[in-house]
Amino acid sequence: ADIRCAQDYEIVAQRTMAEPSYAYVAGGSGRDLTVAANLAAFSQWSMYPRVLRDVKDGHTRVALGTQTFLHPILLAPVAFQKLAHPAGEIDTARAAQAMDSCMVCSTLASCRLEDVAHAAGAHKWFQLYFQTNRSDTLALLARAEAAGFSAIVVTLDASIQVASTRALQAGFRMPADCVAVNVQDASAGQPAQDIELSPGDSRIFQGVMRAAPTWPDLAWLMTQTSLPVWVKGVLHPDDARALQAAGVAGVVVSNHGGRSLDGAPASLTVLPAIRAAVGDDFPLLLDGGIRSGADVFKALALGADAVLVGRLQMYALSVAGALGVAHMIKLLREELEVCMAQAGCATLRDISSEALLRCS
Amino acid sequence: ADIRCAQDYEIVAQRTMAEPSYAYVAGGSGRDLTVAANLAAFSQWSMYPRVLRDVKDGHTRVALGTQTFLHPILLAPVAFQKLAHPAGEIDTARAAQAMDSCMVCSTLASCRLEDVAHAAGAHKWFQLYFQTNRSDTLALLARAEAAGFSAIVVTLDASIQVASTRALQAGFRMPADCVAVNVQDASAGQPAQDIELSPGDSRIFQGVMRAAPTWPDLAWLMTQTSLPVWVKGVLHPDDARALQAAGVAGVVVSNHGGRSLDGAPASLTVLPAIRAAVGDDFPLLLDGGIRSGADVFKALALGADAVLVGRLQMYALSVAGALGVAHMIKLLREELEVCMAQAGCATLRDISSEALLRCS
Amino acid sequence: ADIRCAQDYEIVAQRTMAEPSYAYVAGGSGRDLTVAANLAAFSQWSMYPRVLRDVKDGHTRVALGTQTFLHPILLAPVAFQKLAHPAGEIDTARAAQAMDSCMVCSTLASCRLEDVAHAAGAHKWFQLYFQTNRSDTLALLARAEAAGFSAIVVTLDASIQVASTRALQAGFRMPADCVAVNVQDASAGQPAQDIELSPGDSRIFQGVMRAAPTWPDLAWLMTQTSLPVWVKGVLHPDDARALQAAGVAGVVVSNHGGRSLDGAPASLTVLPAIRAAVGDDFPLLLDGGIRSGADVFKALALGADAVLVGRLQMYALSVAGALGVAHMIKLLREELEVCMAQAGCATLRDISSEALLRCS
Amino acid sequence: ADIRCAQDYEIVAQRTMAEPSYAYVAGGSGRDLTVAANLAAFSQWSMYPRVLRDVKDGHTRVALGTQTFLHPILLAPVAFQKLAHPAGEIDTARAAQAMDSCMVCSTLASCRLEDVAHAAGAHKWFQLYFQTNRSDTLALLARAEAAGFSAIVVTLDASIQVASTRALQAGFRMPADCVAVNVQDASAGQPAQDIELSPGDSRIFQGVMRAAPTWPDLAWLMTQTSLPVWVKGVLHPDDARALQAAGVAGVVVSNHGGRSLDGAPASLTVLPAIRAAVGDDFPLLLDGGIRSGADVFKALALGADAVLVGRLQMYALSVAGALGVAHMIKLLREELEVCMAQAGCATLRDISSEALLRCS
Ligand SMILES: Cc1cc2nc3c(=O)[nH]c(=O)nc-3n(C[C@H](O)[C@H](O)[C@H](O)COP(=O)(O)O)c2cc1C
Ligand SMILES: Cc1cc2nc3c(=O)[nH]c(=O)nc-3n(C[C@H](O)[C@H](O)[C@H](O)COP(=O)(O)O)c2cc1C
Ligand SMILES: Cc1cc2nc3c(=O)[nH]c(=O)nc-3n(C[C@H](O)[C@H](O)[C@H](O)COP(=O)(O)O)c2cc1C
Ligand SMILES: Cc1cc2nc3c(=O)[nH]c(=O)nc-3n(C[C@H](O)[C@H](O)[C@H](O)COP(=O)(O)O)c2cc1C
Repeated sequence: ADIRCAQDYEIVAQRTMAEPSYAYVAGGSGRDLTVAANLAAFSQWSMYPRVLRDVKDGHTRVALGTQTFLHPILLAPVAFQKLAHPAGEIDTARAAQAMDSCMVCSTLASCRLEDVAHAAGAHKWFQLYFQTNRSDTLALLARAEAAGFSAIVVTLDASIQVASTRALQAGFRMPADCVAVNVQDASAGQPAQDIELSPGDSRIFQGVMRAAPTWPDLAWLMTQTSLPVWVKGVLHPDDARALQAAGVAGVVVSNHGGRSLDGAPASLTVLPAIRAAVGDDFPLLLDGGIRSGADVFKALALGADAVLVGRLQMYALSVAGALGVAHMIKLLREELEVCMAQAGCATLRDISSEALLRCS
Repeated sequence: ADIRCAQDYEIVAQRTMAEPSYAYVAGGSGRDLTVAANLAAFSQWSMYPRVLRDVKDGHTRVALGTQTFLHPILLAPVAFQKLAHPAGEIDTARAAQAMDSCMVCSTLASCRLEDVAHAAGAHKWFQLYFQTNRSDTLALLARAEAAGFSAIVVTLDASIQVASTRALQAGFRMPADCVAVNVQDASAGQPAQDIELSPGDSRIFQGVMRAAPTWPDLAWLMTQTSLPVWVKGVLHPDDARALQAAGVAGVVVSNHGGRSLDGAPASLTVLPAIRAAVGDDFPLLLDGGIRSGADVFKALALGADAVLVGRLQMYALSVAGALGVAHMIKLLREELEVCMAQAGCATLRDISSEALLRCS
Repeated sequence: ADIRCAQDYEIVAQRTMAEPSYAYVAGGSGRDLTVAANLAAFSQWSMYPRVLRDVKDGHTRVALGTQTFLHPILLAPVAFQKLAHPAGEIDTARAAQAMDSCMVCSTLASCRLEDVAHAAGAHKWFQLYFQTNRSDTLALLARAEAAGFSAIVVTLDASIQVASTRALQAGFRMPADCVAVNVQDASAGQPAQDIELSPGDSRIFQGVMRAAPTWPDLAWLMTQTSLPVWVKGVLHPDDARALQAAGVAGVVVSNHGGRSLDGAPASLTVLPAIRAAVGDDFPLLLDGGIRSGADVFKALALGADAVLVGRLQMYALSVAGALGVAHMIKLLREELEVCMAQAGCATLRDISSEALLRCS
Repeated sequence: ADIRCAQDYEIVAQRTMAEPSYAYVAGGSGRDLTVAANLAAFSQWSMYPRVLRDVKDGHTRVALGTQTFLHPILLAPVAFQKLAHPAGEIDTARAAQAMDSCMVCSTLASCRLEDVAHAAGAHKWFQLYFQTNRSDTLALLARAEAAGFSAIVVTLDASIQVASTRALQAGFRMPADCVAVNVQDASAGQPAQDIELSPGDSRIFQGVMRAAPTWPDLAWLMTQTSLPVWVKGVLHPDDARALQAAGVAGVVVSNHGGRSLDGAPASLTVLPAIRAAVGDDFPLLLDGGIRSGADVFKALALGADAVLVGRLQMYALSVAGALGVAHMIKLLREELEVCMAQAGCATLRDISSEALLRCS
């Protein structure tokens, strides 16, 4: 009843979630500079309404690689969803199915990936973190393929995790029942941080980063699967171009929702240069700061083929489980359609940067 | 006594109107982004004072089409004026007559349009919303012509109405005695929203927008009346040029006071490009954010021939009925004259963009 | 004791003056937009410190026309100084003498101009408002010449006075003992505002502005005196150039401290274009927003030969009479010298725009 | 425990230091404009994360002149450290040794410079203020050389000290036990301010500045020592180039942490132009506003070879003595390494301006 637009889930969740959990989800790394930048980037653009355009045959269909989606709103990989709701990723998967969305299941899901795949609909992708050992990585990949996920999204911007000041200040600790059940050693879901160092070694360079994936690792991975491999966490045009050359299926322009390098640019800010770098036809997704259909519209206008939604997903899940997530997607889609109708865009193809005006 | 300038009516109304009603009038669609942009756009310009210029023969006369006005301040179409005052649009019409202003009566007026026409003075225009059925549209048009309105203003930016968050939060509901008495079915004043949809249809594209007017509808309308037809709700230069080519009498650069697409640019921001697109002689009005004579001055300097005032009208009406509206127009006009005198402009023609300096 | 820099007089005066009086002095016309712009303009520039420069022979001397001043800080014409202190303009004149400053005595002084001249030192100028009748203007001029004022400053930006919202809200009324004693009819110090109008006439164009001076009036004035005639209240480069061509001694770039046209640009903002318009050698003063020696430095760097100080003068006068004003000038001068020393400028000539860096 | 990043020492110190002492350390000259600018300058840049780069062999080594440092974080000269901790500069020196940092000991240290040198490690530099008499300057130089300092840093931006409004308002007075023990007359640590003046003389030009060093003084100084001579307090590219031509070892781009000329530009703002002026190979340090490893990264990207840390040093010292300072350096270094790893920079050489994106 209090929910009139997708973003209202954020407001309601702030009231209904335990404060430390909300802080954990809402916060970014460090001082939340990139979190704030992600949001501010959208408000720098306004949209041109157009008059008298015929949009009676309008729709929001989009093709990503070989798959076609009824709308361009995907669910970003978000770890540990039991934090928001006892049913965790299962409920999110159900919502994705109901609303024709594509769920991207995280390596660090708190439900078994097979169960998530089972609950999800036609579209389901698996987000992969490189594991310290290639065998562990292969094992995950094999399970994801077997479970029916139709694409792999390799996240590359999370080799180092800097804790969220906000979450720490709120006293957040991951609850005991919220575990990365799909990885060998739950705490090893992310690159190990306590490698033995020689004197003079850096805890960062020779420690945390020793196991971080490099270009040969990606090349190897692509030989191990026939599924399309997307890469998530790209902000520099040169990286996007190099990944395109390496043959990935597409790229997710993302700064991990401001949870990786605090001080990284907003994903929307770098999107136009990346689109220019890879050309018109290379698949590009964007996430980071999407809170409304107008945000989706702007991301598409500036070069994205579709978007992923991170936090809104967790907020809606915590407020009303599968129903909440489904409702949130529905609202977001309808908000997008309202913008399209007013901007005179009957299809996503009609949304170009000419629909926007920089306002500051 | 508390009223020293036109904008003071806003302050006083905020104290005297019922809070939900004030919120309804003041609010825009969604999060009021465009409402705020409209106001901010004016503060980005400063005006050059000039010395020793002779303005003893100064005046504010302006011709719009074949009509001549003593000053360039019109009353924008504002629906449901009984919300502000029991006499509703009648009092506004009286004020317009007393102050040589032109009232633009809304399709959604809460008084009979014939009564409004009767109370208004020499200058009265009728704002038309396309009705779902052409016959209903024609009926309205015939009544407006018969009642003596001398121009038709077709509003094209309100095919979709997104509710105002502010009004909803304040618990606003339209009072029972405040009804769009001039349309067949009061609730049908705006495009129907509950059309039956086929599975897979979009509530927006195949629903709300099915009845939205398109270019052929406008062409048809222009064949149905000999009155000049203005179009209100234009923000894109290409639309303005196309409308000019289609033969409309003039265009109102407007975002519906921020009540239509939240996230649309400020009307003042797009005005210069629109003036450039249509050339020097095509009639252009502007509304959105006019709160002072300085705002009128800036709008004229940036390309408008005259302006319309929306909210100020409702505020003054609620504070003091016809007298309030008349006083507000008088103040606004005198504020404009003070700016002109100090800027050394004896006539509206002297107000050009060289009178302004961009200050941020 | 609480006064550590010139601007501290503002803070202390705010505590010690009656609130309505402070509001009257501090306020500008309308909503104080130009008052705020004047201050903000200075903060947009930073100053380059330079190392190892020899400034042992430094000084702040400056020639304005045929007169030489020990420093470039003049006292702007400020009316009704009895509002701040019982001794009024007499005390200000004494301070000017003590601190080698030049007092510019207002037409609307609350002390007899002969007494002010007597108390002032070597440098004293008279600020002239055109009176409704030329004979009254001539009478004032004759008295000023006889009293020994050595230049006339004609203020041209005050034909219309818009009341200060801030002063009105604070309930300010001019005290009975605070009268413009030098003009025929005290209330006629400014252009009459209650001229009889014909129907259809504008209270502004055919009323207030009927008696406003125009170019021929200035030409006439210059034939009536052998004193140098400065013009105060210029913001547009074209006006500055025209005045230069008309043979005035110099120009004061000023918006009357934001007390004339609310919405006029900051005086500092337009200064560089005016300097460019009149060339390097034409005398230019600036006022509006000077609160510190750094502000003086920036004004000189951007093209002024010297500055005038308005409000600080009244604040210091109210806090400590002649001593306060003298102390304020001393602080301001020393603050300027500190900036010069750190910027490696031994003389005012060394202060150019290369000493500044635009910081926003 | 409350300390999660280097900047947390600022927050904790604000709670634990006596308020006047904190105000003295935190404040700048005048109204803290330059203090604020220093901080704001860093937030105008964001950093590009890069994917898949191999940084396993990463390190932070840097050569400055003939010395090699394990990381680019030096301790800026900060006077009177007993204000923060009873052990004063001794503890800071110990921390520098433990963390392989270079301490720059101030002329105005509150501990004997020989004791500081003894506690410091391999890297220790001495910051020199020119004394009023050359003999005093020589005496300091001789002691510094004898004590084993390996470079001299001449600070040139402090000929005039304007008191901090903030410190004065907080009622700060230097405690009696906090004395500049290394200079002849403790109060003469800075240029004398009470020289006898002739009438008409300026207290600034002919007073304070009479003893200020000029180019010949620097030339003389360089003949008196075989140690490398750095100059600290440079903000203008022309000064940097002239110093380079004069043969100094390197330059510290600095505005004295905003404690010298209030209104000077941020050091980071001018850094790129200075780097361009002196070419790629001339040693440049920067200080002013460094609060995190990201700040260090940005300074290096914009042209610095290394940075100095001022206030953070005092904050950490006050919170936990030598341990605090050591921990602060460790955190800062690791924060830098985290940025480098995420930006794909294995060495400081890899950090170029292409790693940054201007975000406002
Ligand atoms: C609580 C939380 C957990 C996340 N976990 C993952 C993850 O496991 N894998 C991943 O690639 N991204 C993860 N992300 C990042 C999201 O996929 C996405 O990039 C980001 O949330 C988008 O920004 P938004 O939250 O503003 O929509 C997580 C984000 C949040 C908020
Ligand atoms: C309460 C209210 C009702 C309105 N009703 C109508 C309407 O019926 N038809 C129309 O064309 N515009 C309508 N508008 C928009 C105004 O005509 C005008 O575009 C807008 O108010 C201008 O902005 P301003 O309020 O800042 O002056 C309405 C505006 C308000 C505030
Ligand atoms: C209280 C007050 C009275 C003033 N009276 C006059 C006046 O009589 N004549 C005039 O030319 N300017 C007058 N001014 C304007 C000043 O000369 C000057 O332009 C202005 O104060 C400069 O701005 P500042 O106050 O920020 O220094 C007055 C200003 C103030 C604040
Ligand atoms: C309390 C304090 C004392 C200082 N004393 C000196 C000094 O004696 N000599 C000097 O060259 N710089 C001195 N500085 C300036 C620092 O060396 C350095 O330039 C500045 O602190 C850098 O800015 P930051 O504090 O933002 O890091 C001092 C700074 C502070 C805060």
